[in-house]
Amino acid sequence: MGKVLAGMNMSLDGFIEDRNGSVARLYPDLDALRQTDLIQKEIQSTGAVVMGRHAYDMAQGDFTGYEFQAPIFVLTHHVPETVAKGENERLRFIFVTDGIDHAITQAKSAAGDQDVVVIGGAQTVRQCLHAGLVDELEIGLAPVLLGGGLGLFEPHGSQPIELERISVIEYPWFTHLRFRVVR
Amino acid sequence: MGKVLAGMNMSLDGFIEDRNGSVARLYPDLDALRQTDLIQKEIQSTGAVVMGRHAYDMAQGDFTGYEFQAPIFVLTHHVPETVAKGENERLRFIFVTDGIDHAITQAKSAAGDQDVVVIGGAQTVRQCLHAGLVDELEIGLAPVLLGGGLGLFEPHGSQPIELERISVIEYPWFTHLRFRVVR
Repeated sequence: MGKVLAGMNMSLDGFIEDRNGSVARLYPDLDALRQTDLIQKEIQSTGAVVMGRHAYDMAQGDFTGYEFQAPIFVLTHHVPETVAKGENERLRFIFVTDGIDHAITQAKSAAGDQDVVVIGGAQTVRQCLHAGLVDELEIGLAPVLLGGGLGLFEPHGSQPIELERISVIEYPWFTHLRFRVVR
Repeated sequence: MGKVLAGMNMSLDGFIEDRNGSVARLYPDLDALRQTDLIQKEIQSTGAVVMGRHAYDMAQGDFTGYEFQAPIFVLTHHVPETVAKGENERLRFIFVTDGIDHAITQAKSAAGDQDVVVIGGAQTVRQCLHAGLVDELEIGLAPVLLGGGLGLFEPHGSQPIELERISVIEYPWFTHLRFRVVR
């Protein structure tokens, strides 16, 4: 079985979007980023993607040239009526309306021995973490204090989640931290 | 002139104390930590310390054997009546009641060509950052999601604060990130 990876880029003060909803400061050079060993390896090892509806909507229906050419499981309450651009034999959308557990289960099944990557948004990542569904957490820590916006983590009532640092990579744009989630 | 360094340890989700006010998870082995090159170098280069009243109170009046043997400027509204233990020729307390700017100015003057270290708490670090008084920000990022407690950063109305990564050190207990504050 592959692993379930969840990851996002965030500012040092924990925001994944600035106050205007922009992620430009956190993903400053997407083309260069896609050429990094990190992303290239992740593309090779990814068998399925899970994303929330907000993350899906942010692409505005166009997944042409999307880096992960794999089935994408979109967590949503309502299945959209229009079909996204960019679907092909490998990249297709499966809309999951019965919760994160089912999305991950289906994604794992589709991925086989490859990894499932949960690419966001924040709520989806949090739901996965709190449900104990994440094997590894990847954070691209951008060197900025945004001071506001959409936070990745939120105060919650449950126990602390222990992590174990696996690797640190210093990219020009951010510091990539990979953690194992201790269960 | 020396630099003004501000730094604290925080969880990956941005908390510097857990919900019970404990910092044990963030500073797990203080004795070992004090023996690291990082702290030893910082001790050598520190000419003055600035702390908030809460940080002062957390020591419960006993600074015997405190790592920074230098004048300590405590930002407070009310000067305490009792004298802390551990004062000596080098480590003495100066209570500053007229704001963070004055605390930093006095600390810089006392430090001479050595550095001023702002050790917290959160509010003091934030005030220094927002007033543009910090040259370098040091974060010890602990591998845990505490899920609640006292946050280091808070949403605020001002512009993003740009940082530039200077160094990353992987300690067993946390990842030490040092940033230059871009002005």
